[in-house]
Amino acid sequence: MKKSYYAVIFTSIRNSQDKGYALMSKQMEELAKSQPGYLGFESAKDEIGISISYWESLESISKWKANLQHQAAQDKGKSDWYKWYKIRICHVEREYEFTTPT
Amino acid sequence: MKKSYYAVIFTSIRNSQDKGYALMSKQMEELAKSQPGYLGFESAKDEIGISISYWESLESISKWKANLQHQAAQDKGKSDWYKWYKIRICHVEREYEFTTPT
Repeated sequence: MKKSYYAVIFTSIRNSQDKGYALMSKQMEELAKSQPGYLGFESAKDEIGISISYWESLESISKWKANLQHQAAQDKGKSDWYKWYKIRICHVEREYEFTTPT
Repeated sequence: MKKSYYAVIFTSIRNSQDKGYALMSKQMEELAKSQPGYLGFESAKDEIGISISYWESLESISKWKANLQHQAAQDKGKSDWYKWYKIRICHVEREYEFTTPT
């Protein structure tokens, strides 16, 4: 992940019902991984959920957004799972990493 | 938050000791809010922690990084709290928001 790349920040507040959410969430994570241009995924949840996927280009993000199975999941997200969400498409300008010396 | 702005994605894996982490974390969140160019903050934690702060400009991010109290916290982070972290400075290119119709 040295070249220019992009992050999609998905910040969300769920409602209380599962209605197949856990399964779909897992399926979408797997499906995303198989898309061209996919670079990685990070996710954490407590009061809000934050999921970030990383992509090689804006084109790969557009194609993933338009994927039919993903579109069905997006529709279910709006009708059944989320009270609120926000998606930010970001260009990663710089990065730093720290690992504890061993 | 309509104009061009930036996101700082801080992804981390903690070690198991607190050593003043919870207090410092709260203090840094408050201190960040008082900095010029600060726009917002989102955070979630389970297996990993993801904290995202939003800023008006790269200059405001640089100044926050160089803030002396924040630098002391960064040093403690490396020596006491984090096994690993990664910081990505990102330019927000586009955004979408969804709220359940009431």
